[in-house]
Amino acid sequence: MALTVVGSIAFHAVKTPFGERERMLGGAATHFSLAASFFTEVRPVGPVGDDFGAEQFELLEARGIKTDDIERVPGGQSFFWRGHYDFDLNVAHTDDTQLGVFGEFEPKLSDAARAADTLFLANIQPDLQRQVRAQCTAARFSGLDSMNLWIDTAKDSLLAAIAEVDCLIVNDAEIRQLTGESNLARAARAVMEHGPRAVVAKQGEYGAALFTGEGFFALPGFPLDDVRDPTGAGDSFAGGFLGYLDGCDGELDEANLRRAMGYGTVLASFNVENFGTERVAQLTREEIDERFATLHEMTQFEPLPVR
Amino acid sequence: MALTVVGSIAFHAVKTPFGERERMLGGAATHFSLAASFFTEVRPVGPVGDDFGAEQFELLEARGIKTDDIERVPGGQSFFWRGHYDFDLNVAHTDDTQLGVFGEFEPKLSDAARAADTLFLANIQPDLQRQVRAQCTAARFSGLDSMNLWIDTAKDSLLAAIAEVDCLIVNDAEIRQLTGESNLARAARAVMEHGPRAVVAKQGEYGAALFTGEGFFALPGFPLDDVRDPTGAGDSFAGGFLGYLDGCDGELDEANLRRAMGYGTVLASFNVENFGTERVAQLTREEIDERFATLHEMTQFEPLPVR
Repeated sequence: MALTVVGSIAFHAVKTPFGERERMLGGAATHFSLAASFFTEVRPVGPVGDDFGAEQFELLEARGIKTDDIERVPGGQSFFWRGHYDFDLNVAHTDDTQLGVFGEFEPKLSDAARAADTLFLANIQPDLQRQVRAQCTAARFSGLDSMNLWIDTAKDSLLAAIAEVDCLIVNDAEIRQLTGESNLARAARAVMEHGPRAVVAKQGEYGAALFTGEGFFALPGFPLDDVRDPTGAGDSFAGGFLGYLDGCDGELDEANLRRAMGYGTVLASFNVENFGTERVAQLTREEIDERFATLHEMTQFEPLPVR
Repeated sequence: MALTVVGSIAFHAVKTPFGERERMLGGAATHFSLAASFFTEVRPVGPVGDDFGAEQFELLEARGIKTDDIERVPGGQSFFWRGHYDFDLNVAHTDDTQLGVFGEFEPKLSDAARAADTLFLANIQPDLQRQVRAQCTAARFSGLDSMNLWIDTAKDSLLAAIAEVDCLIVNDAEIRQLTGESNLARAARAVMEHGPRAVVAKQGEYGAALFTGEGFFALPGFPLDDVRDPTGAGDSFAGGFLGYLDGCDGELDEANLRRAMGYGTVLASFNVENFGTERVAQLTREEIDERFATLHEMTQFEPLPVR
C-alpha cells in the first residue's frame, strides 16, 4: 500500500510557555508523513527552497519516507511560519507567514505519487487540492483538511474539493462554520450529503469524533502531563488515521475506522510532547502500540447495570 | 440505599434559539434529584417559598423523590434565575438572579437525610456545603460541585469543603482556575492531593473525564440532533453518576465509576433535549438503558492491529 500527501513542508519558529525554537522543520505534510510512516509507505508532495537541505531530507528518509516528490525550487525559500501559544494551548497566535516557494506551487505528481492507494490533501488552497485529487485516480480512500481562511475566501472551491474526497478531517468549529449549522451532528450530516462518507471532527485536547453513515464514534484526547508544543497535532492525527487505514490491508469498515481514530489520537499525543517533529522523529512502533493499548484501556467500560 | 442532595430548588426563566419558558421548575437539586431518582431513593434539601406549590411537589413525588426536607418558608420567594443562550449553547448568559429564601438558608437535615449512604453538595456557598457534610456522617461516598464565583470569593472555604468529600464534580475550566494549573491531568492530581479520591471534569458537549488514583477515563457527550436547553445538564450528569453509584449496591471501584460516568452522560443528554425538567420528568428507565447501550456501542473499539 502507498500513501500520497500534498501540503506544506516548512520551517517554523514557535514559542510556548514551555520553551521555544527559532527554526525547526514543520509543515502539515511533514507532520502527516512522519506520523503515517509507522504504518505504510508515504510520499509527501510539495515545494521547498534552497534552505531545505540534507539534514531535513535525512530526517524524513530515516523514517522511510519517499522524498522524490518534494520539489526543490532553486533560489527559493521554504514556507515559513512564526507563531506562539499562551496559557491556552488550544489557540495558536500567528506572528508571521512567508509563503516563499509555496506561492507559485503547481503540483506535478510523479507516477509513483499518482498511484497511491490513499491520498491526503492537507490544508492548502482548495484549487490546488483539486488539482492533486484529479491526478490521483487510483486512490481507494482520500481525506481533506482545510481551515477558516478558505471557508472565508474560497468557499465554492472548497466545497467542490470536499465533494471529491471520502473523508473530511477538520476542526469541529470549521465544520460548523462551513455548514452554518451549530449542531455538530447535523453539521456533519450536511457535509456527508455533499459527498464524503466520513467526517472527522478534531476537537483539540478534547479528542476527536467520527461521523459515518453507520453512526458516531468518539475518543478523548490522550491525557498528558506535559504538552510542550501543539503545532502539528492535527496533521499527526490525520497521519496516524490515514496511515493506519492505508497500511492495514483491511476493509475501510467501521471497525478499522475506529482503530484508525485510535492511532490518530496516539500520534497526535506524541506530537505535542515536544517541539515540532522532535518527538515523532524519535518514536518507535512499540511506543505507539503501547499507548494505543493504554488508550483502549482508558475508554472501555462494561455495560452490566446491576439492576 | 439512599441519597441526599443539598442545593437550589428554583424557578427559571430561560430563552434559547429554540424556544423559551417564562417560569419553570429548575435548580441544581431539582435536576440532580430527578436524574438520580431512576436509580435510588433521593432526598433533596433546600428552601422554597410560598410560590412553590402542589404542582412542583407532585412532579418530584411522581418520581419517588422524598420531599420532606424541602423547607417551605412562609412569606418567602423561591430562588429565581433568568438567563439566555445564543448560538453557542455552551455559554449561559445570566440576566437576573433573585436569591429569595436561599439568602437566609441554614441547612437543618432530618434524621433520614442525615442517614444517607451517598451525599451530593450541589453548587452553593461552600460554608453551607460544609454544614451539610458535617451532618451526613454515614455517607460512604460524597460529591461536590462548585463554580467560579466561589473560587473568586470564598476559595479557602471551598478548599476546606473539597477536602471533606470523595469526589469533585465541576467544569474543567473550574479545575484549572481552582488549582492555577493549565494542564488538566496535573490540575486533577492537585485536587486529589487535597483530599478527594476522584475528580470528574465536566466538559459540556465534549463529555466528561474521570481522574482517579488508578487512572483516567473519558466519555464523549452523547450526540444529539436537537439540544433545546442546556440548563441543568451538569446537575443531571451528577444525578445519574451518583444515583447509579448509590443504587448499584456494588463496590465504588473503577468499573462502577466508569458505568456511573455512562449513566451521568445519558441523563445529561436527556436533560438538554427539552426545557428545564420537561424531558427527564417524562423519562423511563427503559429509555435510559437503551441510550446507555447506544453510548457503549459508540465508544468501544477492538484493539487488533493488523500488523
